[in-house]
Amino acid sequence: MKLAMFADSDNDSLRPAIITDAGVVDITALVPDAPTPQLVMQEIIDQFETLSPTLNDHIIHAAAKPLDQVRLGPPLPRPGKILNCIGNYWEHRDRDAAPLNMFLKNPDAVIGPGDVIRLPDFTEPTSFMHEAELALVFRGPSKNVPAECWRDAIFGYTAAIDVTARGEGRFTWKKMSWLGKSFDTFAPLGPCIVTADEIADPNDLHVRLWNNGDLRHNYSTSDMEHPVSAIVAFITRLMTMNSGDVVSCGTNHEGLGYLQDGERVVVDISGIGSMELTVEDPLKRVWERGVYMGENSTNHEAIRRNNPELENSLRRC
Amino acid sequence: MKLAMFADSDNDSLRPAIITDAGVVDITALVPDAPTPQLVMQEIIDQFETLSPTLNDHIIHAAAKPLDQVRLGPPLPRPGKILNCIGNYWEHRDRDAAPLNMFLKNPDAVIGPGDVIRLPDFTEPTSFMHEAELALVFRGPSKNVPAECWRDAIFGYTAAIDVTARGEGRFTWKKMSWLGKSFDTFAPLGPCIVTADEIADPNDLHVRLWNNGDLRHNYSTSDMEHPVSAIVAFITRLMTMNSGDVVSCGTNHEGLGYLQDGERVVVDISGIGSMELTVEDPLKRVWERGVYMGENSTNHEAIRRNNPELENSLRRC
Repeated sequence: MKLAMFADSDNDSLRPAIITDAGVVDITALVPDAPTPQLVMQEIIDQFETLSPTLNDHIIHAAAKPLDQVRLGPPLPRPGKILNCIGNYWEHRDRDAAPLNMFLKNPDAVIGPGDVIRLPDFTEPTSFMHEAELALVFRGPSKNVPAECWRDAIFGYTAAIDVTARGEGRFTWKKMSWLGKSFDTFAPLGPCIVTADEIADPNDLHVRLWNNGDLRHNYSTSDMEHPVSAIVAFITRLMTMNSGDVVSCGTNHEGLGYLQDGERVVVDISGIGSMELTVEDPLKRVWERGVYMGENSTNHEAIRRNNPELENSLRRC
Repeated sequence: MKLAMFADSDNDSLRPAIITDAGVVDITALVPDAPTPQLVMQEIIDQFETLSPTLNDHIIHAAAKPLDQVRLGPPLPRPGKILNCIGNYWEHRDRDAAPLNMFLKNPDAVIGPGDVIRLPDFTEPTSFMHEAELALVFRGPSKNVPAECWRDAIFGYTAAIDVTARGEGRFTWKKMSWLGKSFDTFAPLGPCIVTADEIADPNDLHVRLWNNGDLRHNYSTSDMEHPVSAIVAFITRLMTMNSGDVVSCGTNHEGLGYLQDGERVVVDISGIGSMELTVEDPLKRVWERGVYMGENSTNHEAIRRNNPELENSLRRC
């Protein structure tokens, strides 16, 4: 099931829906009420076992609104917490194994499909980049979940862009604290939450990101150093993960690129779907377009070898 | 005004109160209702200008419950976000100026007066320490607040203990990500929020922490490298701070010490008040008692010179 938040011309506030092939089916009347869209989605997560038969029955008969007649919002507009894995892909590099690590990202920075990534209007960061990532949506409270029981803690999956302000080269601005990840609007999430039953193996998904139609990220989640089972075991050893909390699995940096004023960015993950956003920069700064090839860039040859579709984009650098 | 959350034998759920010299005055009936104690406090912050005359009038006449007949909870049980300043005190050291920086701390880790700091039951961290800190409670939405307008963004103040898991020496465990700060129960906050009008200068407060009666932290917030005005300007340049969000101002590391099973910890800040917590460690680990004097410890002589009361504690090392 694909759960989403939507608004339309009849009602501008976000309400819960299921996305079907026919479009968006409003499920407001079938799920518990709660004071915010985030809490509505958390109620759906907590009561999903009970709700699921009713919802499945409903979508057979209910009228669907075509997707182009609604506005989708982030499926989790304001998660309790967001954690992001640090450097969790092998990226064809011959390197030592690295222990899993994560940073906390500002949960107030979440935006959704159709929204605008707004670059901040100051010049300390040297640039801004996209990092397309698979994001895990937790069911909680989950604490001390062993790796082999990881499915107990995972309600579903969504796509995330870990928008990042850079300092020197590829280093995150304020790299000592990861604050370069937490500017307002730097946490696009969506277009929906796909429930876990629809994804046979989260470490076998295809993640892509296009900028103005040029393919940038193009990798498989099978390249993760620490797979989803290890991520669940690690974070629930440290802290209680609650329903609607998010862990983003890290990016494959081979497809990194700048974000700049006026660009349209599309992220797509197999089995989850696509989400398009635009970029606005009040300072109208300009960086080189195409895949990032600068300092600390990952192996260019490996990109060409493994992502032949990137050739075109690379030539534009 | 000292705003708090309390429960008592009549009602175990947290409700809003004012702490007066006579004790705790329930203000539930006078403030907006909201679905969680956190949201109740956020409503109080947002509507404080309107509520204030009624509340002030009420405490003159209303019955107060003695503090020992109630249980205080954290005044902000679940802040939208918590940020902590990194190394923001001079600590009598002859060092270069350092730019301000902050990390995000797990807002689900908040506990309050009388609660238990629970050390995690695994052995990767080498130890656990207390860091007593002044914490700022924001009024929002606050974005791009210039340093000279810092008072616009500050609703009040509370005390925080930034409980920290250590790796090597004084380094935070998982120092690259600050995750050692975000275990469950690692964010004690309280005992109350003192409204900003009662604190003439937040950079002239006395912060103390005792462990089993021995004084550890004992410093003035006048020693901050980046004062409250700079903290407000910095963080609101990066992100929107909302009502009930918290920035903890960092600690003076001269009074650091281990936390271990069975200890009673009291933090006190002048003008705000005291909060006592206990420590539980399922593994019953033992570390040296007294002020931390190990690797990367700050100047011992400076501690003795500036904190004569610490002499006794130091001798116990």
